[in-house]
Amino acid sequence: MRIAVYPGTFDPVTFGHLDLVERGRKHVDKLILSILRNEDKQTLFTVDERAAFLRDAVAPWDNVVVDAFDGLLVDYAERTGASLILRGLRAVSDFEYELQMAMMNRRLAPDLETAFLMPNEAFSYVSSRLVREVARLGGDVSGLVPPAVAKALEEKFGRGTRR
Amino acid sequence: MRIAVYPGTFDPVTFGHLDLVERGRKHVDKLILSILRNEDKQTLFTVDERAAFLRDAVAPWDNVVVDAFDGLLVDYAERTGASLILRGLRAVSDFEYELQMAMMNRRLAPDLETAFLMPNEAFSYVSSRLVREVARLGGDVSGLVPPAVAKALEEKFGRGTRR
Amino acid sequence: MRIAVYPGTFDPVTFGHLDLVERGRKHVDKLILSILRNEDKQTLFTVDERAAFLRDAVAPWDNVVVDAFDGLLVDYAERTGASLILRGLRAVSDFEYELQMAMMNRRLAPDLETAFLMPNEAFSYVSSRLVREVARLGGDVSGLVPPAVAKALEEKFGRGTRR
Amino acid sequence: MRIAVYPGTFDPVTFGHLDLVERGRKHVDKLILSILRNEDKQTLFTVDERAAFLRDAVAPWDNVVVDAFDGLLVDYAERTGASLILRGLRAVSDFEYELQMAMMNRRLAPDLETAFLMPNEAFSYVSSRLVREVARLGGDVSGLVPPAVAKALEEKFGRGTRR
Amino acid sequence: MRIAVYPGTFDPVTFGHLDLVERGRKHVDKLILSILRNEDKQTLFTVDERAAFLRDAVAPWDNVVVDAFDGLLVDYAERTGASLILRGLRAVSDFEYELQMAMMNRRLAPDLETAFLMPNEAFSYVSSRLVREVARLGGDVSGLVPPAVAKALEEKFGRGTRR
Amino acid sequence: MRIAVYPGTFDPVTFGHLDLVERGRKHVDKLILSILRNEDKQTLFTVDERAAFLRDAVAPWDNVVVDAFDGLLVDYAERTGASLILRGLRAVSDFEYELQMAMMNRRLAPDLETAFLMPNEAFSYVSSRLVREVARLGGDVSGLVPPAVAKALEEKFGRGTRR
Repeated sequence: MRIAVYPGTFDPVTFGHLDLVERGRKHVDKLILSILRNEDKQTLFTVDERAAFLRDAVAPWDNVVVDAFDGLLVDYAERTGASLILRGLRAVSDFEYELQMAMMNRRLAPDLETAFLMPNEAFSYVSSRLVREVARLGGDVSGLVPPAVAKALEEKFGRGTRR
Repeated sequence: MRIAVYPGTFDPVTFGHLDLVERGRKHVDKLILSILRNEDKQTLFTVDERAAFLRDAVAPWDNVVVDAFDGLLVDYAERTGASLILRGLRAVSDFEYELQMAMMNRRLAPDLETAFLMPNEAFSYVSSRLVREVARLGGDVSGLVPPAVAKALEEKFGRGTRR
Repeated sequence: MRIAVYPGTFDPVTFGHLDLVERGRKHVDKLILSILRNEDKQTLFTVDERAAFLRDAVAPWDNVVVDAFDGLLVDYAERTGASLILRGLRAVSDFEYELQMAMMNRRLAPDLETAFLMPNEAFSYVSSRLVREVARLGGDVSGLVPPAVAKALEEKFGRGTRR
Repeated sequence: MRIAVYPGTFDPVTFGHLDLVERGRKHVDKLILSILRNEDKQTLFTVDERAAFLRDAVAPWDNVVVDAFDGLLVDYAERTGASLILRGLRAVSDFEYELQMAMMNRRLAPDLETAFLMPNEAFSYVSSRLVREVARLGGDVSGLVPPAVAKALEEKFGRGTRR
Repeated sequence: MRIAVYPGTFDPVTFGHLDLVERGRKHVDKLILSILRNEDKQTLFTVDERAAFLRDAVAPWDNVVVDAFDGLLVDYAERTGASLILRGLRAVSDFEYELQMAMMNRRLAPDLETAFLMPNEAFSYVSSRLVREVARLGGDVSGLVPPAVAKALEEKFGRGTRR
Repeated sequence: MRIAVYPGTFDPVTFGHLDLVERGRKHVDKLILSILRNEDKQTLFTVDERAAFLRDAVAPWDNVVVDAFDGLLVDYAERTGASLILRGLRAVSDFEYELQMAMMNRRLAPDLETAFLMPNEAFSYVSSRLVREVARLGGDVSGLVPPAVAKALEEKFGRGTRR
């Protein structure tokens, strides 16, 4: 069975992430979306909230599961039996960071491979950070994130001024 | 009337910014330099100090005004009647960030366009962050910022060791 | 009157070019699409064919005209009274080339400014070169170029295998 | 059955290509290395020679086959039943070109996905073009290509001056 | 006498840094590795600890010395009689930052030159930040840093889970 | 004695090249500007013409000599006793190409190092290719190349239309 892990912070999940999940899941038997628990990094939503958004969004896809992990990604992949890490590449700056991480992970676990997919160009500019920032300033993000996320952002920051 | 907004933190204004203002102002009827009020971001100078430096520097140009805003840039542009956002592009890293912002702003306000100008190559390496850092360490920044800014930096950090 | 020149090879015009024209034309009084005559560069369509495609495509916009030029762009801009050059920026590789050209043109004609717009992300990957290549191999390019161009490509290369 | 195509010119195959094949083959049932026949592009080795080098090099791997194609890659993938295109990413300049091709291929065949792997950093600077150039000038390329390729290059260009 | 300064945070020194030192030292009479004291930046190891790691690592090379500085690098270079700054270039993102710093330093001290070397590709993905992160999560970094650094990281973060 | 080679096509030499020579020569005992003879590449000026322009331009500097070479750069460096290759870095696209060449040369000759300097920002956009193109179209390049080169370009292409 081919298992892939798609690790991330998912704070919150965007349509860019989900586009990648929909593409990637067709090429493996099981895809695990796994939230990195990082206590040093301040997040907008808790791990439980982020997991709930993810579970809701991937419900239609029967070979996608949601999880969380801490520690090294390579250790987590080994525990779950994954042979692939899945990542998205949007921009040159992504590319260099992802290359560095992939090389380090390969050094730590030579048999674990990192595969990159490119998201739909419609989401090429969408990042969780930008979604949080726009929502905080009152912008409508309803075309960029699932409805439950949009609602939660609105509850946190107030109803957007632009829709 | 064609109105453009040049948004920024301007902490402090540099000759790079002013080069862009001088170029951009010729192609619109009115150019608004507008300081983004961002309470989450620590700045060296207050919004009032930054506005004073800007007003002083743009005094010779009759179609340039200085303002400040909070909230979404697209809302601010609408309130001021601007149809253009003006931004400078110095480097590849600028490019990717600016592209992402321009795409998001276009999604929020399809009729608002972002136009990019390239600064004089003499200022291609000048950023507010680098000016603050050099001044903090005692370097002379008098060729990079207007005299009033250089004086204010000297008062904050002491007389530079190199001139 | 504010006049801008959008120079290019336009071999052939794509929806990416036209997206830029539609955006740029709103911010000037007159926009001149001008085909660079370059006898050293082999093209698929003649200058006359390319001009006909362009004229057909820009017919709905009353402040857009089509022309051709040879020699230095800065000389052409001066002859037509243009104060702006309009260019699109899609990718980092575009960025460096365009920056180099803009700097050189500024040296040759300090009062002529180059302004960059970013095309709709739906066209971020579309270039004339790629359109020609796909059409040559029998791919359907009807969503990427105006109907008259798609028809001309089909006549040159045969009916596409994929539609 | 999951089938992937790794398309390329392979003029000649390098250890960089083979590193990618070895990594990629573990994640699919069948991997087809397919040489793009492009009569417009002058190559050092014929398609038959390039195929022979590839077959020799992939002999140890039972789920890797060698083929050649012309026309659109998406048509070829459909004929062979492939659902994945495999490509390597070494550098930023690769990234932008590959992104453009992946987007175009996705438009032509939405169900065909392009996955990118990163080669071993030891081969990050190795390209067929650079291997040809070094061999032409008499440099030893024996650590960069399979022995049969090194021998063929030596026969074409003479024994290297440096080993 | 040709003296070069290789400035950095070295928190901690990696084999990437040492590769650069070994290369650079052959081309100057004296190479000074100098730790930037920056009280605003939180580091994992103290300046004294970092200096001890460096001294230990460069002991075999008789023309390399270890030092620390605060204030402007250009002032420090003048005090030490250095005419060159040595820096490594691994990636595009390095390149733009380093270019900006080199330009600013040239403005402050026109006779001081910055020379860039490229590290061995085996260390192209190694940075102090990534080493700290991997060590914190329990990964083995013993192939990336000198033994004394690996031991100190293990004492800080516990024995790695992967070796 | 520390000897460096600065290899290039120099078709023709520009002030950007000379800026690099002036900087680099201070840090070595002897700097050899060496023209790559490449019969496959069409050039505007012959090797002899290019060498004459270079000799004229470097006459004031007593530790700079002009030469030409064919074959591998690493073989040439060995014959001349050089331990350093000198190259300029202007842009990201330069960076990736230069990195690839430096890695390959290091593989062919491990003791030969490539050092990169950054040209004055005033010449950051100047390349031989762009100078040839502007001169061909009648533009004035007299601020970008030595007077003898400007005169030779004018003789080839006619007097510029813009000065």
